[in-house]
Amino acid sequence: MSLQQTARMENYMQFLTFFILALALGIVSIAFALTWVLHYREGLGWDGGAAEFNWHPLLMVIGFIFLQGIAIVVYRLPWTWRCSKQMMKLIHAGLNLLAFILAIISVVAVFDFHNAKNIPNMYSLHSWIGLAAVILYPAQIVMGIAVYLIPATPVYVRAALMPVHIYSGLFIFTSGIATALMGITEKLIFSLKSPAYKDSPPEAVLVNVLGLLIVAFGGLILWIATRPSWKRPKEGIALTVSNNSSSPEDIKVGTAMTLRTDQEFSLETRRRNGKAEESG
Amino acid sequence: MSLQQTARMENYMQFLTFFILALALGIVSIAFALTWVLHYREGLGWDGGAAEFNWHPLLMVIGFIFLQGIAIVVYRLPWTWRCSKQMMKLIHAGLNLLAFILAIISVVAVFDFHNAKNIPNMYSLHSWIGLAAVILYPAQIVMGIAVYLIPATPVYVRAALMPVHIYSGLFIFTSGIATALMGITEKLIFSLKSPAYKDSPPEAVLVNVLGLLIVAFGGLILWIATRPSWKRPKEGIALTVSNNSSSPEDIKVGTAMTLRTDQEFSLETRRRNGKAEESG
Repeated sequence: MSLQQTARMENYMQFLTFFILALALGIVSIAFALTWVLHYREGLGWDGGAAEFNWHPLLMVIGFIFLQGIAIVVYRLPWTWRCSKQMMKLIHAGLNLLAFILAIISVVAVFDFHNAKNIPNMYSLHSWIGLAAVILYPAQIVMGIAVYLIPATPVYVRAALMPVHIYSGLFIFTSGIATALMGITEKLIFSLKSPAYKDSPPEAVLVNVLGLLIVAFGGLILWIATRPSWKRPKEGIALTVSNNSSSPEDIKVGTAMTLRTDQEFSLETRRRNGKAEESG
Repeated sequence: MSLQQTARMENYMQFLTFFILALALGIVSIAFALTWVLHYREGLGWDGGAAEFNWHPLLMVIGFIFLQGIAIVVYRLPWTWRCSKQMMKLIHAGLNLLAFILAIISVVAVFDFHNAKNIPNMYSLHSWIGLAAVILYPAQIVMGIAVYLIPATPVYVRAALMPVHIYSGLFIFTSGIATALMGITEKLIFSLKSPAYKDSPPEAVLVNVLGLLIVAFGGLILWIATRPSWKRPKEGIALTVSNNSSSPEDIKVGTAMTLRTDQEFSLETRRRNGKAEESG
């Protein structure tokens, strides 16, 4: 293997390590949320009672945290670089749309539960920031579709709005995690009586660990999403940079992984070239 | 004014708007925290009672949120670009050190309060994530001093660790905000009895708004910290790019503001050139 190939492989392995770790943390988080509602709480149901409430944490962990997190980094999976950008945009939008639908069901569950129990809605900081995130999320999705999926939108508009799209996506995702942490805090205080939250019964420890898992998952997603060398390569630049492969698909993948070799400069070259890609 | 100057001025005004807004939100957050502990709670004291606890939210808002946030963006203030990089690093480190000292006092206050009242320590998710952040913070500061302030550290080490330094700094800051939101949630549930949190008394609304202010402050700091066009310009490139000024200091400022004009490419040029700067 040439030095270039070794560096390319090393970059690929690093990405893979982070991505598999994120995936594992996300899946373990869902397993913890399931254990919480099925083993320690009243299970799942749709009766206005506690079992209906339980859909709230479960669907939020699955949708607003796990699916949204995967949607954020989906462009960075090297094995998707053979797919067209348009296809990947549809997958990105589809995952976010699915996450949003789960979030809506999850919000309905908690409103139903509150109304059945005569508990006021929307009094807590959890509900304020959570509702803000759940309102901003479809705004982000609609903006994303209008700007990046509708062919009529001019390239300069796409390019100009890309930093806003990325920032607001990461902001909504992070707000979702902060909201989950507040939700865990509230629920453990309200539902644990004897022993109470402060006595650290097994349920409290399990759900605290769920909180840590969610933070670690979020931290990994934000790391993956902000590494320039893991970006999907621009289709156009492949031919000008890489010339040790003949198939266009190999060239594309090859380029992205090659650019790490002279890191300080090539990352930025890719970033610069990537601008047009992002808006294309 | 030339087109270049107009663009430079526009970029400067945009930065100024965001920075002043962040500053205002930070100061209003501190005022809200003060109003909370002085007007609605037991005031401030050091007696093992509620008045000692009250230092906890107040000092965390001042230190771990406001001062840390300002420390993060301090390199981006255009009027500091006349100061040496070394001086700005000392200010950056100093603000973070001050924030850390306030955080330690703040943690001591809450442990004292718990011990005096026989409340267990470290059982809540708030305390777990908060302690993790307060342990990672000095690790980040020590790493920062060792790598960026001690002259012996080689430039390639500084450059290689810069992405980690930036990411972990923003991660600790964001975790601090998430921890504050959990702390607000806990405290309002525990301390409001009749009327309770769910009855939305004025104190609950004030402190919920404090939570929103903190999130907005954090959102602005993260936006400012991640805009390439607002970065402190590298000393070296000034002379090669700008030639419409004779004083070296004017050139420096001039360059940074000029680069916005041909945004797509010049931002990246600055970023590329900025790599050495970050590590220098």
